[in-house]
Amino acid sequence: MLRRTSRLLARALRTYAQKNCWEASVKFYSFWRSLAAFRVRIALNIKGIVPDEVVTVDLMKGQQRQDDYKRVNPQMLLPALVDGEGPILFQSVAIMEYLDETHPQPRILPADPRGRARVRALAAIVAADSHPLMVPRVRGYMENELKLDEPTRNTWIQHWIREGLTAMEGHLARDKETGKFAHGDAVTMADICLVSGMTGAAFFQVDTSVYPTAKRITETCMAMDAFAKAHPLKQPGAPASVGH
Amino acid sequence: MLRRTSRLLARALRTYAQKNCWEASVKFYSFWRSLAAFRVRIALNIKGIVPDEVVTVDLMKGQQRQDDYKRVNPQMLLPALVDGEGPILFQSVAIMEYLDETHPQPRILPADPRGRARVRALAAIVAADSHPLMVPRVRGYMENELKLDEPTRNTWIQHWIREGLTAMEGHLARDKETGKFAHGDAVTMADICLVSGMTGAAFFQVDTSVYPTAKRITETCMAMDAFAKAHPLKQPGAPASVGH
Repeated sequence: MLRRTSRLLARALRTYAQKNCWEASVKFYSFWRSLAAFRVRIALNIKGIVPDEVVTVDLMKGQQRQDDYKRVNPQMLLPALVDGEGPILFQSVAIMEYLDETHPQPRILPADPRGRARVRALAAIVAADSHPLMVPRVRGYMENELKLDEPTRNTWIQHWIREGLTAMEGHLARDKETGKFAHGDAVTMADICLVSGMTGAAFFQVDTSVYPTAKRITETCMAMDAFAKAHPLKQPGAPASVGH
Repeated sequence: MLRRTSRLLARALRTYAQKNCWEASVKFYSFWRSLAAFRVRIALNIKGIVPDEVVTVDLMKGQQRQDDYKRVNPQMLLPALVDGEGPILFQSVAIMEYLDETHPQPRILPADPRGRARVRALAAIVAADSHPLMVPRVRGYMENELKLDEPTRNTWIQHWIREGLTAMEGHLARDKETGKFAHGDAVTMADICLVSGMTGAAFFQVDTSVYPTAKRITETCMAMDAFAKAHPLKQPGAPASVGH
């Protein structure tokens, strides 16, 4: 309750500050389907930051490889965030860390170094070891260079989703640090990454009932506005469902 | 010079403290060839931390999938670090962040949030978007499940190394923040990840002359003891060279 009040207050103050030119604008490069953009959307919602502009970069049309966006982010990947006049911010985890440092309430990293290490490592299971194996450029290489058919590509994707979720469940089910959320009873970057991984699992029809702890935490998160409103299928341009 | 003196002093103090049981022991799970373990070795060297025990987990023999190691790290990936009695630390970037928080001198992250975001994002180009596509488990899947031959697998690896280094060079050559190192004139996590990526490029015969900024910074780093001594080919059990 207190947290909600302070979030609303922070948001109101921010809007007021922006209107009075105290603060520079926030521009978010996003696409409904990007799971990395989904992570940043959740973090923005948790922090009560409403971007002044959301630029859609259609991954399905390859707009991330066009010159316009290449100038923004030479790596040609989503998401990217511009906060005021500063240089572009890119890479979902780096953006979340930045948001946590510049908008500390509520925190999405624990206060103690060991806790922070655990949260960052859990986040990396999804953001570094699982998700990068199934992004559009990888699927494109598998289709165009390796000439692998769609069922084979989907089996690959499902395999790495399962590997990631198995590792995640292994830690979550075993570690005494796991609580209502992945780390204790407050939302962290680990939950945000977990939810993005579980959403990818749903997109690719992976059975998640074998990851009961991951599933419980995901359901707890998705019952919160900050997560629910950020869901890929609730973004402009998204279809009603994703089928393969 | 001052930095070197303070590092030597820190190391001497640490050894003294350990001998007098002031401080718990550091156990490092590593393998000569792992580029992620290489990153953590560099960070340990920079911080002047000498692990009390280095446990070799032979990735080529699949020891990372054996029960002994699975109990240490359910994700079955290297590296892992135990600092005292605490739970296992895993994921190279999370370990480096932990080391930077617990052993702040010298820092491997800049002091300002924007600088930190840039360093973390550059680090992620290698650690999240490039390296995870070529680790043993991925190569194993390509060989055993997709039945792809070795030249095809090597072309895949070279492709993702080039994608990573192209993105890295794109940022390094363009950004005014680039200095003697990837971010200004002090070593950061971005350099550590860059060097691991460039070392992977050398292992897989990727021509790095087309990435002049990345090459210059890598050479500057490799002239430093902390980097040179951490090199995969200088570790126990390593061959004289890696051929494909």
